[in-house]
Amino acid sequence: MELRLIKKKDKNDFKEVKIKDVIIGGQATTIIAGPCAIEGEEQILRIAETVKAMGGNILRGGAFKPRTSPYSFQGLGEEGLRLLKIAGDEVNLPVVSEVMDTREIEMTDKYVDIFQIGSRNMQNYSLLREVGKTNKPVILKRGMAASIEDWLLAAEYIASEGNLEIILCERGIRTFEGYTRNTLDLSVVPIIKEETFLPIIVDPSHGTGIRELILPMSMASIAAGADGLMIEIHPNPDKALSDGMQSLNFKDYEVLMKRIRSLSEYLKS
Amino acid sequence: MELRLIKKKDKNDFKEVKIKDVIIGGQATTIIAGPCAIEGEEQILRIAETVKAMGGNILRGGAFKPRTSPYSFQGLGEEGLRLLKIAGDEVNLPVVSEVMDTREIEMTDKYVDIFQIGSRNMQNYSLLREVGKTNKPVILKRGMAASIEDWLLAAEYIASEGNLEIILCERGIRTFEGYTRNTLDLSVVPIIKEETFLPIIVDPSHGTGIRELILPMSMASIAAGADGLMIEIHPNPDKALSDGMQSLNFKDYEVLMKRIRSLSEYLKS
Amino acid sequence: MELRLIKKKDKNDFKEVKIKDVIIGGQATTIIAGPCAIEGEEQILRIAETVKAMGGNILRGGAFKPRTSPYSFQGLGEEGLRLLKIAGDEVNLPVVSEVMDTREIEMTDKYVDIFQIGSRNMQNYSLLREVGKTNKPVILKRGMAASIEDWLLAAEYIASEGNLEIILCERGIRTFEGYTRNTLDLSVVPIIKEETFLPIIVDPSHGTGIRELILPMSMASIAAGADGLMIEIHPNPDKALSDGMQSLNFKDYEVLMKRIRSLSEYLKS
Amino acid sequence: MELRLIKKKDKNDFKEVKIKDVIIGGQATTIIAGPCAIEGEEQILRIAETVKAMGGNILRGGAFKPRTSPYSFQGLGEEGLRLLKIAGDEVNLPVVSEVMDTREIEMTDKYVDIFQIGSRNMQNYSLLREVGKTNKPVILKRGMAASIEDWLLAAEYIASEGNLEIILCERGIRTFEGYTRNTLDLSVVPIIKEETFLPIIVDPSHGTGIRELILPMSMASIAAGADGLMIEIHPNPDKALSDGMQSLNFKDYEVLMKRIRSLSEYLKS
Repeated sequence: MELRLIKKKDKNDFKEVKIKDVIIGGQATTIIAGPCAIEGEEQILRIAETVKAMGGNILRGGAFKPRTSPYSFQGLGEEGLRLLKIAGDEVNLPVVSEVMDTREIEMTDKYVDIFQIGSRNMQNYSLLREVGKTNKPVILKRGMAASIEDWLLAAEYIASEGNLEIILCERGIRTFEGYTRNTLDLSVVPIIKEETFLPIIVDPSHGTGIRELILPMSMASIAAGADGLMIEIHPNPDKALSDGMQSLNFKDYEVLMKRIRSLSEYLKS
Repeated sequence: MELRLIKKKDKNDFKEVKIKDVIIGGQATTIIAGPCAIEGEEQILRIAETVKAMGGNILRGGAFKPRTSPYSFQGLGEEGLRLLKIAGDEVNLPVVSEVMDTREIEMTDKYVDIFQIGSRNMQNYSLLREVGKTNKPVILKRGMAASIEDWLLAAEYIASEGNLEIILCERGIRTFEGYTRNTLDLSVVPIIKEETFLPIIVDPSHGTGIRELILPMSMASIAAGADGLMIEIHPNPDKALSDGMQSLNFKDYEVLMKRIRSLSEYLKS
Repeated sequence: MELRLIKKKDKNDFKEVKIKDVIIGGQATTIIAGPCAIEGEEQILRIAETVKAMGGNILRGGAFKPRTSPYSFQGLGEEGLRLLKIAGDEVNLPVVSEVMDTREIEMTDKYVDIFQIGSRNMQNYSLLREVGKTNKPVILKRGMAASIEDWLLAAEYIASEGNLEIILCERGIRTFEGYTRNTLDLSVVPIIKEETFLPIIVDPSHGTGIRELILPMSMASIAAGADGLMIEIHPNPDKALSDGMQSLNFKDYEVLMKRIRSLSEYLKS
Repeated sequence: MELRLIKKKDKNDFKEVKIKDVIIGGQATTIIAGPCAIEGEEQILRIAETVKAMGGNILRGGAFKPRTSPYSFQGLGEEGLRLLKIAGDEVNLPVVSEVMDTREIEMTDKYVDIFQIGSRNMQNYSLLREVGKTNKPVILKRGMAASIEDWLLAAEYIASEGNLEIILCERGIRTFEGYTRNTLDLSVVPIIKEETFLPIIVDPSHGTGIRELILPMSMASIAAGADGLMIEIHPNPDKALSDGMQSLNFKDYEVLMKRIRSLSEYLKS
């Protein structure tokens, strides 16, 4: 693996990505939570308050949704980003949203604190280069068929334009197993920590596609050494416009936050 | 599978995509050939003459190359497209090249007769929509982890913007087998012909990654019912700047063309 | 790949496996056909007559069925083998059936002309060694997750006991694609012919799991260079006790035989 | 999934498998450790003492090794089993070893406390039935390409003969990712606990193939809810006759035991 800019030099070489007063990497365990899709002002505000109240660190929400079918709900677009920013400001949490098109980066930049590159665009090299030209942190999700090498080289694309504020996010790969939506590959957590100084978080919502698996896979991720989690939550998952099957309701999110915070403290003690 | 615009209505429902006087689909067996990357004027002109002389129908050549590493040769960019057009005009063949960024479509449109969407961008929905707004044919390669349904729904994205001039191209999927670069999935040929009226071609160069497998897999593709092939050729494959391992030299290309034309005639007799 | 006994020495090094007056390998195109499971005397006799009448070379039929669930029909056992032999003798065709247990080899040996090792037992090394101690031909199906190397080394197990009468059979591998039962990997055909002198046949019934794909995938297999096919047929596929979805009825089998014989002659002309 | 005998009835329905005074399942966290292959009396005795001294519960060791190549070390056979039993008796630990052939079950039964069915034989239904006729516990490893349903139905084969003393063992599946030997699929831990009352353990040695990943993946397994671990250890991993790359030395095994025991206590507190 020919890494240049993101290669780990020695075992103490790790990076803390800072977003306002939030840190990802190092000693932190950072929880990003929010809805798959922003559906309206009330929804995102309620969620933002819950994320904050339970100790979440960053608010997520999709405005431009890369849906497999053109006939599925595609997100609220810029209006969604505007609502996301209002919600984040309201509760004083940084916000992250996905960017899918080089032409949208400038606009998106006005609303978000972190850019997300989704799985389907992990090898959209034009997009990687463009976010690499900004100075904002980027969450780079692993592609569904991306080897670890492909993924780290995608991060090199961003780095090669000058932006080293990169957070890797494991979200499952495609395998023959159809019980889960994807196969969450947690062995990447220690591997990434061996190969690069960049932090790595895990998305057990997409990684499994099954609500009941989010808690145990979150526990496993943190025990494996992940720097944080990205969790989908919704006030009423069964009525969510997108991915409700893999979203936690507020009560289950509260349970998860307590379990993860406690495990995290135990592991660092 | 919820196809709307590209769904096959009955067994005689098939589309012929026309590019100048070339047809893809129906009774035709259409051969697209050329280098992985355009390297210079002499190279592309020599290749164009060979493609034409042996009975090839369309000239391909990469100018913007989606390379896994940012440190690999990235292609000649617009200058490459200019040379491709010169070469195509010289021998009177339509030309196809990959477009990777919504911002490049207008410029690329000046040079090419067919847009290619590569595997890595098969779910770059912004890009799909933009080529869907043009009236030029689009070759849509299957993503490395794309199910048949994902792939056809990606074609629906193009179609939903009004452009039905779509050619599907199988190029192998990622599996555990490491002997070949990808696993060429030829069963998609009859499946695609069952589900949609769109034509399907096969790229055995990327589909196997091994020069010696191009001929037998080309024969198999045509026998399975494919409407054409996309083949990488190079005057000196071992010195190619990109993907030489999976390129044919001129002599092997000549052999392939004779075998394929003969098989195709046999099958239609 | 450390092959010893089955390694190809030069491009003219290929083996013909002989079973009575039938040959697999070399210039032959050998068709093995029959039901997934032997269901009774009338069924297997009718099928045997049809296999023979349409020019099939070998009769197949399962008596000990490796079913995923213990609650599915498990086959008729030794009685099934007895019926298979009667049917084979009646129409003068060699017969093949699967053996799953080292303890059954001696008994099975009395009835069959060829042993079949199924996918699930491709790495049942005790079983491989035992059939290696007989002098009967063995059809070795590829395991669902077997790399080409794993597969050829499994053949080495048989060879290492002294039996070189081995026929490899591609039958699809497990991938993320769920449209087909397995992903038929036809690129193995030329690869196997490069690495070993052993013949290779293809089973498009298991390889796709879809009746309509058997003919096009059979054509593709032969065009890729396969030495033969293994096809499931049944007088009434929709009422078959096992795998009816991937069995041809007699009429479609007749069409297939004509197409394959014609293609085979064309390719050798 | 049509489970009959091993189906979970309600959320409190879980089974404790008892082997002498060791329990797998329920509140226990059971550690099985030992060499991939038994190499000699001194080796297995030293390892047994170490397994015991650090708090391991069961001694493992391979005597009949299912090696991909017939030319690799195949194990010491019955002599290995004899040494394993001596070592287990010496330190008062139950022992487990793999059985690969129906003909070896009776002999193996004299030496081991638990039968292991390996990945390659997960669908060797004759073997499953035979161990199902004994009254000894069986560790059933997941096949490399086995879906969760295939795996549980394999367990049903054992159960259907009257033996419900079954322990499932996740050991990684085959995917496109080549960095690790297999992709360890930890989401099966909560899934198995939802579908069946049988206990599940994890083998991170085979599951990753990389020594450095054993500790973090062991932590993740326990955090996900696994009932135990199977770990390969060796006094000198670099000189092991089999699978040294994925074996821990004694010092790292000691670290692992302390970390796992502590995590396990934390999780149950």
